[in-house]
Parts: sequence; structure tokens; C-alpha cells
Amino acid sequence: MIYAKTVEKWDVFEVTVPGYTENNPFTDYKIQGRFCSKNEEKCVDGFYDGGGIYKVRFMPSFEEAYTFEIKGSFSEEIYKGAFQVTVPGKNNHGPVRVANTYHFAYEDGTPYYPVGTTCYVWSLQSEELQELTLQTLADSAFNKIRFCIFPKHYDYNFNEPISYPYEGTPCDNSVLTKDNFHEFVGTAPGNNWDYKRFNPKHFQLFEKRIKDLMELGIEADIIVMHPYDRWGFSMMAKDEDDLYWNYVIARFSAYRNVWWSLANEYDLMFCKKLEDWERYAKIICQKDVYNHLRSIHNCKSFYDYARPWITHCSIQRQDTYKSAEYVDEWRTRYKKPVVLDEIAYEGNIQHGWGNISGQELVRRFWEASLRGGYAGHGETFMDENDILWWSHGGKLHGESPERFQFLLNILKETPGLGLAPMEAKWDEVAAKVESVPFHDGGYYLYYYGFNRPSFREYYYDDIHMYEAEVIDTWNMTITKAGIFKGKFILDLPGREYMAVRIRRIESK
Amino acid sequence: MIYAKTVEKWDVFEVTVPGYTENNPFTDYKIQGRFCSKNEEKCVDGFYDGGGIYKVRFMPSFEEAYTFEIKGSFSEEIYKGAFQVTVPGKNNHGPVRVANTYHFAYEDGTPYYPVGTTCYVWSLQSEELQELTLQTLADSAFNKIRFCIFPKHYDYNFNEPISYPYEGTPCDNSVLTKDNFHEFVGTAPGNNWDYKRFNPKHFQLFEKRIKDLMELGIEADIIVMHPYDRWGFSMMAKDEDDLYWNYVIARFSAYRNVWWSLANEYDLMFCKKLEDWERYAKIICQKDVYNHLRSIHNCKSFYDYARPWITHCSIQRQDTYKSAEYVDEWRTRYKKPVVLDEIAYEGNIQHGWGNISGQELVRRFWEASLRGGYAGHGETFMDENDILWWSHGGKLHGESPERFQFLLNILKETPGLGLAPMEAKWDEVAAKVESVPFHDGGYYLYYYGFNRPSFREYYYDDIHMYEAEVIDTWNMTITKAGIFKGKFILDLPGREYMAVRIRRIESK
Repeated sequence: MIYAKTVEKWDVFEVTVPGYTENNPFTDYKIQGRFCSKNEEKCVDGFYDGGGIYKVRFMPSFEEAYTFEIKGSFSEEIYKGAFQVTVPGKNNHGPVRVANTYHFAYEDGTPYYPVGTTCYVWSLQSEELQELTLQTLADSAFNKIRFCIFPKHYDYNFNEPISYPYEGTPCDNSVLTKDNFHEFVGTAPGNNWDYKRFNPKHFQLFEKRIKDLMELGIEADIIVMHPYDRWGFSMMAKDEDDLYWNYVIARFSAYRNVWWSLANEYDLMFCKKLEDWERYAKIICQKDVYNHLRSIHNCKSFYDYARPWITHCSIQRQDTYKSAEYVDEWRTRYKKPVVLDEIAYEGNIQHGWGNISGQELVRRFWEASLRGGYAGHGETFMDENDILWWSHGGKLHGESPERFQFLLNILKETPGLGLAPMEAKWDEVAAKVESVPFHDGGYYLYYYGFNRPSFREYYYDDIHMYEAEVIDTWNMTITKAGIFKGKFILDLPGREYMAVRIRRIESK
Repeated sequence: MIYAKTVEKWDVFEVTVPGYTENNPFTDYKIQGRFCSKNEEKCVDGFYDGGGIYKVRFMPSFEEAYTFEIKGSFSEEIYKGAFQVTVPGKNNHGPVRVANTYHFAYEDGTPYYPVGTTCYVWSLQSEELQELTLQTLADSAFNKIRFCIFPKHYDYNFNEPISYPYEGTPCDNSVLTKDNFHEFVGTAPGNNWDYKRFNPKHFQLFEKRIKDLMELGIEADIIVMHPYDRWGFSMMAKDEDDLYWNYVIARFSAYRNVWWSLANEYDLMFCKKLEDWERYAKIICQKDVYNHLRSIHNCKSFYDYARPWITHCSIQRQDTYKSAEYVDEWRTRYKKPVVLDEIAYEGNIQHGWGNISGQELVRRFWEASLRGGYAGHGETFMDENDILWWSHGGKLHGESPERFQFLLNILKETPGLGLAPMEAKWDEVAAKVESVPFHDGGYYLYYYGFNRPSFREYYYDDIHMYEAEVIDTWNMTITKAGIFKGKFILDLPGREYMAVRIRRIESK
């Protein structure tokens, strides 16, 4: 039995023990851990990690002494031990939670404003490319990334992953071309997989990247299923799916930065029915004892985000022209945080979802933010080696990413946990602080998008002083515009993409 | 009796006769003309033009000999005469008609692709400014202009018109400011008008401008009523309204370039009910014997464009983000030409309807065109003398107008009378020729708006050759891309606002 004697709160406490290797260790034996302290008691499944090794992972939520007991059919032995949970490190704020209906905070109370990106299979590319991706992420504003456990089969994605999730051999990819790849969706001829025997190496590599992201302060929005497949992983039988879900949860749920995205474009997975998605959700709710955030992402049709197991909307826009503009409607409909994980990517590829400008994407981010939601990034520029950020990671080429840091800084300066849409003129979006107890506002943010007013009038009351700033969201400047009382007019530059921030000066 | 002995087809034939001046000549006497030729016989009302002079106007539709008879209670005499109608001049194509459900043509069959602008009260400004406006129009692509008979009271519109439509005196405008003008909407204190006695001078000046526009080949889309009023003209009684409508029709309907817009923003005229609008429409249908185009323009709520008297939609957008994008839906709903007379103006004023960029306005024009409709222009740049094109005319300052000439040239090169939307990928709009008998297409136009594909694939058949051109709608360039057969790919520059035109090369 191997385990550490101390662990930080919200870090992974792992116990490694030997066990049976006969038969199929992934299906024929069980391993469970029970973890107890003064304030909590949790039972979690462990998993077989290959080579006769079983592991149980646990994320403690209290700074106190814990004991544990590991047992199950994997071995006749019962392993017991104790460890001490210490204060979290400086950058460890715990898992992200839904804090006040529409917004997020880490478990320690620090506000969390998601600025997400998407690199579907970055962790299945070459080691070198993965390291480059991590470096790019480290230098960016992104604090959430969506990526898949299974490899991706799609335009620009004909190569093989560095590893496969199952024992077996893949179909032949040499016949694939840009023109015929659609014919191989689902399972192509020649696949030979044992969907009852995982390849532990695949999951070890994957969880190394979860940890790398954790160290960078980036949430791992894990896409557990997706339809862009030629290996058959999207067409497994019910018991194989359930085995997979249980294995994934047992391995990954102790990482505090994990979010569960049941699927990317669930509605393109024609082999799955609504009852399947609900069953996977039930497995997560039962087996993820930490209640990580849960959602599911659409292509055409929204999943019903009102379902109680869904913690937040993970939306793909349904309209070419309007996306972020609907955030306030979706807030009203679902009463949950609205995260727009796909609203078209900055780029120039042939697909309409991947060829908008940086300006348009940044505009959508601001629209989403001021309507009380959050937008997500992706990048799809043509590349001679077919390395596109959206799927492979690598370097960023677009103009939008640095603007997200600017927006994030402004969000971090809001007094509450997030913004709430406010009544506005029809060529602007306006936001105030989401209502929190004992907070009476005094913070207003306006965004004018593609409209270009030369001036605008503001009025709140006749009593307080207000400080106004004119923000150029594209050129990333904040210009002080003065201190005002009563009704006042601000001159604006008559350019696109301007914002105004007005903050009440508290009397001392 | 004064009249010319010859007149061009579709020009105004006018008869001037003396008559009674006692009592109120506008209400107490009738004058009518009957015009006969081999192919037509029409009865029209005349009107009192002041100074004891009555006039009857007629627009002949055939190149042949006509006789006429003028009679009525205005005089005991009956006037008779004859005249010859000659071939129309080079630039005289007759009135514009709805040619094939969705598109327009002049009566001589020449296609008419509306490129409209709005200068609400340009003809009520100083003589000098009016001449400048005409010069600007002459140098532009605009072939339709919306403008009002009544003066306008609104932000940037506090000055008095050069003339009033009625005898009387106006309210005092010296008390008006940008802040209080809303309080004087409708009828302000101090107005003293006789709504039963027109001021002929006002209408003479107005019809001079109709003629000037006719000479420039510009349709006069006359806004007969509107809500932006401080003189009470929007709040007259039923019999006063009807008198006004009859007078307007008697005076203006013989001008071939007249279109009737019952109102601008009819739904803001809170004194008028649906039955009033339908009554005005009935008067036009009865009294305008030439069947000029008829529509009515909304602010918030569409009038039911399905009403049989409405010849075409005259739409103001209802959404900040999407306007032209709905053209195909509106075509389906109304089965009439869709003209977007207001989709926000290029400019930088404080109002959301008047501060979009030239690029966004041009984008909306292309969207509208390829979806089988037509967009309209307006311009609202801040001006130290408060002269804004949208209301006063003058000079143009924006970047959009020259791009409309470019678009119009492309429309004029379509083989049919207009474009019809075609099934398209979701990041493009695509158009073919509106179906006309014996025309089998072979013309395709694509527009990519803010999307920026680097290439795209096209395929029509394996038999014909197709010539492809890449069009930069903003930089106004057309680049030949080659001649192709079967499936082919075009490289595109990955910029916004690109279009592609593909034309079948007819075998000889």
C-alpha cells in the first residue's frame, strides 16, 4: 500500500494497492475506499490501473485528520491508514461551484468568471505539441478548456491519437480523404477493440494533463462522449458505456478542476437515446461524490437545461447572426449559469462555425458577459500542417485572445460574483451587479457593440457621485471620463466596440 | 384653358382653367377630368391651386390621340380638348410596377432594383440645401427616396419648414430644446391652422421636387402622414384627413415616379386606428387611377402586409441584430416584394437606429439582396449645423453609398428581374434568378457576410462550363476566378464581406 501522509485540502489523496490480475480486472473485481474525518465520510470506487495495481483516489474538503479503509473483491486484504489534510496552497481555491444561480465561485469563495476555450483532442497529440499547448494556455486568459477523452475523427482530424482508451487495434486510416471521411463515421471496417478492457496508459496520460491544467488554474471541462468517431467508441453497448462512465468517474473525479460535459453535440450521437443520457447523468450523480459541475453540449437541439442534474447551460448557438444576444432569455428560461461553449470560432476555414473575425468573437464575449453569461473561444485558422487550435492546440494566431484578458480583468473588478442584465436602450447592453445580500449596486457597465453613439446620457440619482470610464474593448484602453452627479452626458468616440463603466463613489 | 398639344407617354398632361373663388374653393367645388383614347378612358379629380385657378392632371399610358372634358361645380363651363401622346423619352420608363411577385419593373419592362434612401423633410429645407441634396442624389446610386409632405418635429428637427400645407400660423418653436421636445408632440399650444384650406404654394414646391426627382430617375416614395409633429397635422379630424388625402392624390398621382407610403411609423400615430388606415387605403385605391405602388411603414409593429391593397412590404427592422436576414421569411409570409426601408442608418448619433457603420449597412444590403429583397439607406452623422442626411438632405459623409452603386451594377447584370434565395450553407446566403418563364437559371450569387472562408466548393452539373468571379463587396472589386466544369473549389481571401458570382456559359 502506497499513500502520502499529508495532502492539501482539495488535492488528490491516492492509495495504491496490489490485487488480482486473473480474468478481467476491469470488470470482475471491485475496489472501494471509505474516507472519514470529523466533518465528512465518503465512499468512492477505485479502479484497476494495469500491471496488478489498483488505485483509489479521494479529494478531502476539510483541513483535519482523515482515516481510510480500502477493500473489495480485488483482494482478500483490507487496507487501512490515516493522513492529515493541510491548508490549500496559494493557487488552490477548490472546485468551481454555482454560487448564486447564474454565476460561479471556487469553493473557497473566490469568484470564478469562466473564459473558456476548446481544443478537442489536444491531449491526444504528440508530446511536443501538448507541451506547446500548455505553454500557450499558461500565457493566456483561459481558465477553462473543453477536451475529449476519445479521439476525434473529422475534417482536419485524420491522424491517430497517441494512445487508445481500449485494448485492441484501430481501423486503417490510410483510405481517408477530405471527401470520403463522412463515410467512416461511427465505426469503420477493421476496428478490433475490447470495450471491456481499458488501456490504463491512455487514462494515465489524460489525467497528467488534468493535473497540468490544475497547476495552471485551468478547469478541465471533460467531454466524455462525442460523435466524431471512426473507432466505434460512440457506438458501444449499454453495459460498455456504463463501464466506461464508472471508470472515468473513478479515475478523474478526485481532481478538483474537473467539469463533466456528458457529450459534445450529443444530438449527433444517433445511437444514443434520451434515456441513455439520463442514465449516464444518474451514474455521475451517484458516483461523483464531489458534485463536480455537469452539463451537456448540443449541436442543433438544446438538451433541456432545466433538468435538475444539469448545473449550468453549455450552449452551442443555434443561429448564424445571434448567439450571445440570447443569454438573458436563456437565464430566464433555465435559471442557471449560461456558458456559451460554442458561438463560432475565430478563423478562416470553410466551415461557417470556424471563420468569424476576432472582432466579432470579442463582440460576442462582451454581449454574453453583460447579459449575465459567459462566452467561449475557439480558433480555426488554415494551417499547412493541419494543426488547428480548436482540435489540436498548439499556438494561437488570432486577435481575440488578448482581448479576453482585458475583459476578464474588468469582470474581476466587479463588486459581486458576476453581472446581471439591466434594462437598456436597444442599441446597447447594460449590466449591474448580480443581486447579492446587502449589496445595493452602484456599479454599471454598458456595451455598445457595433453601434457607435457619439454621446449618451446617464442618470441614477441626485445624491451620489459617480465615476465614469470609457472603455475601448478592442484597443483595450480605459479612459477616465470624470466624476458626475445627477443627469450627465458622456462623449463617446463614435467607434464600434465601446463600453462605459460607471461606479458609485461610496461616501466614507 | 391652358394645355399642351402633345405629351410624352407617362408624362403629366395638365389642364389649367379658371373657376369660382367664393366660399372655400378647396371644399365647396368639384372639378373632374375625363380622358379618352382608343385604349383607355379615365376619370380623375382636379384640384384648386389658389388664385382662382383649378387644375386637372393626367398621365397617359398609350401613344395615341386623346380627348378630354373638364367639368364640375367649380364653373358653369365645360372645357374640352384633344392632345397627342408621343413616344417616351430615353429615360422615361413609366411607373414602377410589381413585376413577378417579389420584384419590380418599370411599365416598359425595364427591371427596377430599388436602392432607396431617406431624407424625411429635405424638400422643406432652404432652397440652397434642396439644390445640394438634388446634386448629391444625382451623383449617387439612389433610385428611390422617402420623404414627407408634412414637416417634421423631432430631435435635430426644431426648425420650421419653408412652407406649411395649410393656411394659418404655427406654434412658437423658441421654447423647444433637446430635452423638452417630446412634450410638444402632436399639437403644441399656439397652432392656428385652417385644416380646410390648403396652402397651394406648399404643394407646388413639393411637386416641383417630385419632378426634379423624376428627371433624375428617382422614385418619390411619398410619406403622406407621420407622427413627428408639433403642428397638429397628425391629429386632424376624419373629414380633414380625407380632404387631405383627396387633395394629395389629385395633385400628385399623375407623376409616374410617385409611390404612396401611407405613413412613416403608423403605429406611433396614436390618434389613428386601423379603420383609418384602411379608409385612406380605400381612397387611394379609388382615386389613384394609375395604381401607384402602395405601402405603409412601421415603427414597432408591422402592418399586415398581406392586405390586398398593399403592393409591397415597407419594413422597419424589429431587432437590433437581425434585419435583412429575415427577408426570405417575409417573402414567404407576404408573397410581395420586401423593401427594408429602415434597417438602421450609417452614422454616429445617440440613437441606436442611427449609429451603425458603413460596413454593417452594406452587409445588410447584400443580405437583403441575396435573400430576394431590397434594403434602404439613411445617414445620421453628427453635424455642427444639425444637418443630417436622414432628415435634411445635403451632403453624404458615409462610406456606404458608393458601395450601393457597386451592388446595383451587379443586380443590373442578373439575367432576370431579381434574385431569389437559394438553399445555402449556414454561413452564407445564396441566390439564383427569380424564376421567370423559359429561364432555367445558370446564375448563382453567394455572399459570406462576416464569415471568412478560405475556400469553398461548388457543384451544379457535369455538363456545363461555369465562369466564377470573386467579388469584394467592400473594396468593390470583381476578380475572375476561372472557368470550371463539375465539382470545383474556389480559393477565397479569408476576409469579411466577400461574394462569389458564378454564371453558366451558354453553349452557342
